[in-house]
Amino acid sequence: MTDGTITTDVAIIGAGPTGLFAAFECAMLKIDCVLVDALADIGGQCAALYPEKPIYDIPAHPAIEGAALIESLARQIEPFNIPRMLGRRVETLKGHRGAFILGTDKGEVIHAKAVIIAAGAGAFGPNRPPLDGLEAYEDTGSVQYYVRRRADFEGKTLVIAGGGDSALDWALSLKELARKIYLVHRRDKFRAAPESLRQLDEAVERGEIEKVTPFQLKALHGESGALREVELVTLDGESRRLEADHLLAFFGLATDLGPVAQWGMDQIRSTIPVTPSTCETSLAGVFAIGDVATYPGKLKLILQGFSEGAMAAHAIHPIVHPDQALHFEYSTSKGVPNS
Amino acid sequence: MTDGTITTDVAIIGAGPTGLFAAFECAMLKIDCVLVDALADIGGQCAALYPEKPIYDIPAHPAIEGAALIESLARQIEPFNIPRMLGRRVETLKGHRGAFILGTDKGEVIHAKAVIIAAGAGAFGPNRPPLDGLEAYEDTGSVQYYVRRRADFEGKTLVIAGGGDSALDWALSLKELARKIYLVHRRDKFRAAPESLRQLDEAVERGEIEKVTPFQLKALHGESGALREVELVTLDGESRRLEADHLLAFFGLATDLGPVAQWGMDQIRSTIPVTPSTCETSLAGVFAIGDVATYPGKLKLILQGFSEGAMAAHAIHPIVHPDQALHFEYSTSKGVPNS
Repeated sequence: MTDGTITTDVAIIGAGPTGLFAAFECAMLKIDCVLVDALADIGGQCAALYPEKPIYDIPAHPAIEGAALIESLARQIEPFNIPRMLGRRVETLKGHRGAFILGTDKGEVIHAKAVIIAAGAGAFGPNRPPLDGLEAYEDTGSVQYYVRRRADFEGKTLVIAGGGDSALDWALSLKELARKIYLVHRRDKFRAAPESLRQLDEAVERGEIEKVTPFQLKALHGESGALREVELVTLDGESRRLEADHLLAFFGLATDLGPVAQWGMDQIRSTIPVTPSTCETSLAGVFAIGDVATYPGKLKLILQGFSEGAMAAHAIHPIVHPDQALHFEYSTSKGVPNS
Repeated sequence: MTDGTITTDVAIIGAGPTGLFAAFECAMLKIDCVLVDALADIGGQCAALYPEKPIYDIPAHPAIEGAALIESLARQIEPFNIPRMLGRRVETLKGHRGAFILGTDKGEVIHAKAVIIAAGAGAFGPNRPPLDGLEAYEDTGSVQYYVRRRADFEGKTLVIAGGGDSALDWALSLKELARKIYLVHRRDKFRAAPESLRQLDEAVERGEIEKVTPFQLKALHGESGALREVELVTLDGESRRLEADHLLAFFGLATDLGPVAQWGMDQIRSTIPVTPSTCETSLAGVFAIGDVATYPGKLKLILQGFSEGAMAAHAIHPIVHPDQALHFEYSTSKGVPNS
């Protein structure tokens, strides 16, 4: 990889739970692979968006938090030393089944016999408010779009913006920790679970949360990325300034297939249709699994992404090892290397 | 259930890993179900055949033993209090999609709107040697077909019979524990992994295992189920008696769809073809998942059984709740009852 050229059997695009387990399935079938992800860490949405949120429908895990799920999947592939190319976006795909060439935004070139797209909802990111100088405040953590570490907000004054479940849930959750919470929404009514709305009313009554509606974000004030005040405005032009250490904005996720959309596969909105039981896309040798893949009856469950990863790896086996019939074995009789 | 009549939404036949997880998926969709299994315990083959054998390809479980897998799945459905009818074989199935009547060999009658067959390899059991008085020795554990607890064989003299991997692996594994091991096979050659054959030669050389070939089992000698001697015979009629505390016989599994084969579904040998993505059989309202189910490209992995359980439960939802559109939600936003 010293000259920026990587040669492997399979390029897996996306290192969320689905991509990680697909890497395991490839490794079990003696198929080499690399994991590429636009984020700086493995784990995709699980790690980035809900590391501390329990998931209940992973088989044989009565409850597991996003971060713990990713940690378990990482341990499962550890024996195989699968190369990771993180913080890279795959921009281009050329070639054909058996011989693909992928190019990243960092200038690396990957030669692979097959490709697995496990890109989840695509290159997702938060919807960011259109405020001047926003980036400087993001860089310092003054403005955030996910709660990664609750402890960051201990004793702080927070402006939480948004009208949905995320804004409400975090306002309710952080009120024990923060010094003061303003909840800002451009309408008076919030759209959230009835139970959360009830709890909000209670917290407002007790003075634990101050509701500031109907107001929109107008400007950030501070120095060198350190936030001092958030300026708000109504539709009528009435403005108000709130003292704040942090702005937490929950305006939903922007999802986007990104460059993948240019590679010539069939697409249905932001998803890629695949053949069930192989997960091959309309581009021979390119497979799609997990939330990005669709077929009649598709369920968007992490479990289905795992299952699709197993199917794709088995379907890729004859591309990588054309001379070996796949003698199907259970893992109990096969074992893992280095263990 | 006092009068032997049970009314539910879904009868799940088979309480192995696949059946247990299908029950979870039903419960998450507010579909009632009962679990029926011919064995006295839940867990199917995992619990009965390899409770202490690690499995490597369950997602987010780098290695989990059969018994631990079943224990985790049982904990996952605990909040739902799903009725279990164990030690029962479902003999008859009548009716149609939305209204089935099942009859068990214990005389119970189950009314269900849909049926999920998760019968694994069917009503499996060991191939038992045709020896007089065998049952009495089985009842006391003198004759066994699986190793459930290695500790049972500490300091004992064992006759291990069979010519395949199971016989060899257990002979090699138990030699540290047992006082003496005879390995009996009707031919001189064993059919097993090259590495096992090499280890066997070594153990025979060192006197750790005594190979007794070509001999077949002829009779068991002892009193009230306590084994004293195993009598062997060659094809030429030459006989030999071995002192023994236990006979471990590894003659493979007999699998059999059993009464299910009479219910009128399409079958391919001992498997049931299903529509991928719903897992419905040729009999509307009857679904099959896990090893018993087949479709083009089917992989016999426990993971696929889990995934098929999710698909079947979702496909059954409109049968049970015809007036409710299934608003698809992730478990993270849905939560589990009583938790």
